[in-house]
Amino acid sequence: MDLEDNLLMMPGPVPVPPRVLRAMSKPMINHRGAQFSAIYDDCRRILADIFKTENDIFVLSGSGTASMEAAVGCIADKDDRIISIENGKFGERFKDLASRYGSVVPLEFEWGTSVDLDPLEAQLQEGAKAVTMVHNETSTGILNPAEQVGKLAKKYGSLFIMDGVTSLGGDDVFVDDWGVDVAVVGSQKCIGAPPGLSMLSVSEAAFDAMKKENLPYYLDLKACKKSADKEKTQTPYTPAIPLFYALQESLHIIEEEGMDARIERHHKGAAAVRAAMDAMGIEMFPQLNEYSAYSNTVSAMKAPAGMDSETLKKEMMKSGITIAGGQAHLKGKIFRIGSMANVSYRDILSTLQQIEVVFKKSGVVSELGPATEAAIEVLCK
Amino acid sequence: MDLEDNLLMMPGPVPVPPRVLRAMSKPMINHRGAQFSAIYDDCRRILADIFKTENDIFVLSGSGTASMEAAVGCIADKDDRIISIENGKFGERFKDLASRYGSVVPLEFEWGTSVDLDPLEAQLQEGAKAVTMVHNETSTGILNPAEQVGKLAKKYGSLFIMDGVTSLGGDDVFVDDWGVDVAVVGSQKCIGAPPGLSMLSVSEAAFDAMKKENLPYYLDLKACKKSADKEKTQTPYTPAIPLFYALQESLHIIEEEGMDARIERHHKGAAAVRAAMDAMGIEMFPQLNEYSAYSNTVSAMKAPAGMDSETLKKEMMKSGITIAGGQAHLKGKIFRIGSMANVSYRDILSTLQQIEVVFKKSGVVSELGPATEAAIEVLCK
Repeated sequence: MDLEDNLLMMPGPVPVPPRVLRAMSKPMINHRGAQFSAIYDDCRRILADIFKTENDIFVLSGSGTASMEAAVGCIADKDDRIISIENGKFGERFKDLASRYGSVVPLEFEWGTSVDLDPLEAQLQEGAKAVTMVHNETSTGILNPAEQVGKLAKKYGSLFIMDGVTSLGGDDVFVDDWGVDVAVVGSQKCIGAPPGLSMLSVSEAAFDAMKKENLPYYLDLKACKKSADKEKTQTPYTPAIPLFYALQESLHIIEEEGMDARIERHHKGAAAVRAAMDAMGIEMFPQLNEYSAYSNTVSAMKAPAGMDSETLKKEMMKSGITIAGGQAHLKGKIFRIGSMANVSYRDILSTLQQIEVVFKKSGVVSELGPATEAAIEVLCK
Repeated sequence: MDLEDNLLMMPGPVPVPPRVLRAMSKPMINHRGAQFSAIYDDCRRILADIFKTENDIFVLSGSGTASMEAAVGCIADKDDRIISIENGKFGERFKDLASRYGSVVPLEFEWGTSVDLDPLEAQLQEGAKAVTMVHNETSTGILNPAEQVGKLAKKYGSLFIMDGVTSLGGDDVFVDDWGVDVAVVGSQKCIGAPPGLSMLSVSEAAFDAMKKENLPYYLDLKACKKSADKEKTQTPYTPAIPLFYALQESLHIIEEEGMDARIERHHKGAAAVRAAMDAMGIEMFPQLNEYSAYSNTVSAMKAPAGMDSETLKKEMMKSGITIAGGQAHLKGKIFRIGSMANVSYRDILSTLQQIEVVFKKSGVVSELGPATEAAIEVLCK
């Protein structure tokens, strides 16, 4: 089997289209010249459309975690109250990160359960500089109520810092309408580029809140703004040029598809996965409430009775398809299928078909067909 | 003129060989799988040879500045005395960066002049947690006395954090023999890869000194070590996969050439530039003392009387060659030629020939020939 031709159906890194890969093979350029500025400007323009914002947009040469730290590290000083919502692995990471800078008030919900707004409002009433939340919790496949949290934060005069790493580019995000002061996305998720860059929008209120004496240096958002506002748009430190080539190309693909069509395609893809799981009697992992929904970019399911999800992952790998298992204490207990970026319906159907085969072989299901049929029905609607 | 086919003779980003560019067009892989671990292990092995060290080596998805911040940010707490040596733009940056974390004792020498060891020793006698210095000061073309500084720091029980961004991979660096506790290199300089990664070695003493309560998060070197020490070598956060492909390929090129041959080639290349400048009556910018030398990877020259170096840069650009001007207050006053990584003697000679043409046209020199002849003489030795 060709290891280089593995179908990545995990929640990032996603498969990168050939034209994006080819874009990276262009020669290097002077990162302080007009050519680079034009690329950066073009990326920022399209990203503003995806984020639905008029806030400043920056691209950092670093993963999503880098941009999250840029936000929290520039805003939170050590006595600042930061409410950190956690209902999964990435919420936990955001909380840990925030704890290195501010005085964190953790608002924890069991992984896989939904966020409740009442305890958040109670904490907001006591005052907080910022609220952090993961919009689309990749580890549990749940979509958290970003709009409601954004509006609540605003009501009580707090900033809202949102990890949109696996929602932006694949699902609805309205940065300005929801009042998201900082929104972060990773290059290797719904945007469809290789890993290594992260992009974020920063509101004026967020900039006004950066009053600390010592900001982080590499992740200094004021330095990003200063460099971006120059006559020739620049980054404060040397950018990862080939990844900017790739980002620009993948943003062009998004522009060509159109965000509305892209979001609808993501919604249908994830609905097809859920329909197939339902047809096989496989339960979804998230427990929803009135404020939450299943993720439209990554689906998390409970492992069937008697089968460790790591076994499923290994069996799938044998047929050249990479799906994800559970993280931390969820390892072995859940499996996750990413349906992000430029993953096609054909890719989704191949994956579901192969899962059905593995489940049939191990007696989880009694017949082949129902899962893919259910998925096709959703996709052909 | 083909803008994509510009000869980059600036001190990074350097031209990237076609086989390194091609390496980036491979499909994405699971960054938590065995394939990625094998790539990371291979890179660390070759880097240890280049650094001449048995210390831990890590690759960060971020520019050289990111690795410098990782070192200083993990080691320096706010009351720690950090001696920051500055004799150029990058020394200044290192000092500014260190000031965000520790109590910096600046040891400043005019840009372009040499570092003096007496004032350093006087400061070391008063005790310091660490000394920071740029080995090869890219902004002024001077090679600073890393060996002596390393040994002095050791004598007084201080750590030595060295910016080797434009020396490692192109010039002699002996991390263990010199007692360099943290040495940093950028991917886009003498290593010959695209920008976006930086690599650093970290000594046990440096790890022991990381006693702060809150380390930086994305740049947490303890987290790097924990992930690298796992059964499958990993990075703590998602790595920039295509840049790792490129780094591995460029390290293979280095291995094939051999470090001794590579360093000799760099020495000769820079000597050829200096010989050509001398033949044209152009003065070198650095003022040397007994501890310093001209850089073997980037040469900095004074602009000839009556000609702004920005004019020279623009004239060179017309013939498809990018050289560098001066930074900050040196803008217009000096010009710089990088001869790093896989830049060939042919590239160096083309550049010198073209400079001679520009100088002849503007009356700086009276005849064509002597500069390239002097360079050829050095290269053919």
